[in-house]
Amino acid sequence: MPVFLNTQDPDFDAAFTELLSAKREDSPDVDDVVAGIIADVRARGDAAVIELTAKFDRLELTPDTLRFSEAEIEALIAEVSDAERAALELAAERIRAYHAKQMPQDMLWREETGAELGWRWTPVSAAGLYVPGGLASYPSSVLMNAIPAKVAGVERLAIVVPTPDGQANPLVLLAAKLAGVDEIYRIGGAQAVAALAYGTESIPAVDKITGPGNAFVAAAKRRVFGKVGIDMIAGPSEILVIADEQANPEWIALDLLSQAEHDESAQSILITDSPAMADAVTAAVEKQLETLERRAIAGPSWRDFGAVVVVDDLDQAAALSNRVAPEHLELCVADPDALSAKITHAGAIFLGGWTPEAIGDYIGGPNHVLPTARSARFSSGLSVMDFVKRTTLAKMTPEALQAIGPAAETLAISESLEAHGLSVRARLDALNK
Amino acid sequence: MPVFLNTQDPDFDAAFTELLSAKREDSPDVDDVVAGIIADVRARGDAAVIELTAKFDRLELTPDTLRFSEAEIEALIAEVSDAERAALELAAERIRAYHAKQMPQDMLWREETGAELGWRWTPVSAAGLYVPGGLASYPSSVLMNAIPAKVAGVERLAIVVPTPDGQANPLVLLAAKLAGVDEIYRIGGAQAVAALAYGTESIPAVDKITGPGNAFVAAAKRRVFGKVGIDMIAGPSEILVIADEQANPEWIALDLLSQAEHDESAQSILITDSPAMADAVTAAVEKQLETLERRAIAGPSWRDFGAVVVVDDLDQAAALSNRVAPEHLELCVADPDALSAKITHAGAIFLGGWTPEAIGDYIGGPNHVLPTARSARFSSGLSVMDFVKRTTLAKMTPEALQAIGPAAETLAISESLEAHGLSVRARLDALNK
Repeated sequence: MPVFLNTQDPDFDAAFTELLSAKREDSPDVDDVVAGIIADVRARGDAAVIELTAKFDRLELTPDTLRFSEAEIEALIAEVSDAERAALELAAERIRAYHAKQMPQDMLWREETGAELGWRWTPVSAAGLYVPGGLASYPSSVLMNAIPAKVAGVERLAIVVPTPDGQANPLVLLAAKLAGVDEIYRIGGAQAVAALAYGTESIPAVDKITGPGNAFVAAAKRRVFGKVGIDMIAGPSEILVIADEQANPEWIALDLLSQAEHDESAQSILITDSPAMADAVTAAVEKQLETLERRAIAGPSWRDFGAVVVVDDLDQAAALSNRVAPEHLELCVADPDALSAKITHAGAIFLGGWTPEAIGDYIGGPNHVLPTARSARFSSGLSVMDFVKRTTLAKMTPEALQAIGPAAETLAISESLEAHGLSVRARLDALNK
Repeated sequence: MPVFLNTQDPDFDAAFTELLSAKREDSPDVDDVVAGIIADVRARGDAAVIELTAKFDRLELTPDTLRFSEAEIEALIAEVSDAERAALELAAERIRAYHAKQMPQDMLWREETGAELGWRWTPVSAAGLYVPGGLASYPSSVLMNAIPAKVAGVERLAIVVPTPDGQANPLVLLAAKLAGVDEIYRIGGAQAVAALAYGTESIPAVDKITGPGNAFVAAAKRRVFGKVGIDMIAGPSEILVIADEQANPEWIALDLLSQAEHDESAQSILITDSPAMADAVTAAVEKQLETLERRAIAGPSWRDFGAVVVVDDLDQAAALSNRVAPEHLELCVADPDALSAKITHAGAIFLGGWTPEAIGDYIGGPNHVLPTARSARFSSGLSVMDFVKRTTLAKMTPEALQAIGPAAETLAISESLEAHGLSVRARLDALNK
């Protein structure tokens, strides 16, 4: 059974705090194994990647077949149905349009002293995207990771996707093509992350690695961080729905389950000011769980981590939601804009009953790679910003240096950094001669 | 002796690649010690922090004296000279003005389907800033970390700064006050990071931790990452100066040394198209090293990691610099703007001979916390962006859902996520009744 809470309960605060701190995922400790794999790939390059792929994916490769050829890609893509192709194309177009608006602006200005200040954004040169194989091989994730990179101007975008027993997902390849991916390698696991980070004879190194993966992939990303950039390490994900009495309980039940069906450690929370709505949604969830295809996953998620919280009013709902800082937040209330204004921490907000979270997973436009496990308190979803970096610019004139240089010299001396001070003083002396 | 290279040398490429991959810092493996300290602080809170501070900083504290009182702060600040106070005030004002321009904009638009899309930025609620004690206790770093946080709108900004044997740096306290810091704790090391991340009876937890520190602090930041956000883990830093024949070799020597004097593992590189300039700068560095206060640090840095590279032309210089992706890049050339346009990877660019890097360390306005160890290939310096996060917004209308909902349903079915599809279908059916 999910947790049922009411803010009127005397022990509500303790119970809600416990809900927040519940550990939902046991990450197996694979760090030593991963360290060995990375060292092996660094030392032996292609040969190590090929051996590990034979071992873990039961697939025999050569340096020439590590990468999908154009002909192979075209042949696989031809298997995709027209309806699926059209849906992916529409999704790609909408995701591209949304992310194009994220491109940050360069700035350069001249201040009163005459100094020019500003900054400039440039893309990462080469990026690698990890795409899981098997069950969790989602073409939508390819679009969500690859399109921001290409919008940012990344010149070389490589995908690694394991194909256990040689099984490739045509939709993943089509998504990669629509997104403009340049290279696709049929490798996975920690060995693929190591190959992207350090390069091999056949796989040039990249500067940044993004994309979801299992415990081995996550551990490998943590280990190569610093050598290359990485995106966030995703934890178990969550949805929080705030509903008032006018909401549709059947719809909300499906929205809660569309989170729960991802993963047994996913969390679905309903907060409502209507006890009747709490009951109706709970009943609707139970009914759906009788027949849902993925009830073996969604059921345990709902029973172990689901929660239904009855509050006095929607202000209280917003305050509790801000404590959760959910990855996905649905506002199924009469005035979602007013409620949204009270939300300070959330990865993505879906406003009103006509905006199921699933729209955001596929086709709305915003990214579906979002901060999980309460990290929306301090981080953002994936965006164009993950594939660009800022170079700050400063250009002094003699006048500007005369205006602000003496203060720099004073501070350098305070910090006992003599050369810092002298580098300013030498120039000031030249001006004052 | 520093490395001398010439692109005309037959083995130049190999030698330059070796320069790029040279390991400049041996990080002691303190991870186990740090794990123990964090566990202790989580379990025993204040008591653990107080014990560890007595042990490492030889300072006896109580829960009441963990934090500096207002009276203590005022008394210490009163020791600061007028010249230093004025310099810090000017620096704070200029850093604030620069960072104010970094505040990102919210966006919200209605597209053809009628759907509203956009995003909104909100500040991190609480941030903690680590300030090293002792030699590397730099008031300038307090300004550079704290001001972007306050510009971003962080409500609660706490500083931790160790005071070994009770010795506090009045300039650090004044910088904290000028930056608007709310709380200052006289603790340091892994125990301070743990206290900020998990909270104790006297120190409320924060959501994000930034600031430099030693190996223990860096290991602690890595370990609490995920529970809270962190900034980059800084590595050994570097300066690269590109100079042509018109540059002033004495000034460049001081600029190279102002990096070298930070740390024995710092790296200073000169790239020039003038062999005469290469010689003149080298001689000037050697001369300064005879008398420089910090020659015991700057000397080894220059001899072990310094490099002088002679190139055919400035295009070649830009290409090599982009391979280095230096933290600091000075362009001491006749047309620095033209050369700057060819730079794709650098933390900060200082244009022209009148812009010594030291200006950027203190008072230029841009941040001096910059990506080190070649990470400017994929990351940016500290900014307001580190203290805000984006919430994406989507609001469908019935018409918008009819336009794009079917494609979402198609993709959900492709990915075998039935509840995702049903959550869209249920709404579409209601519309089509």
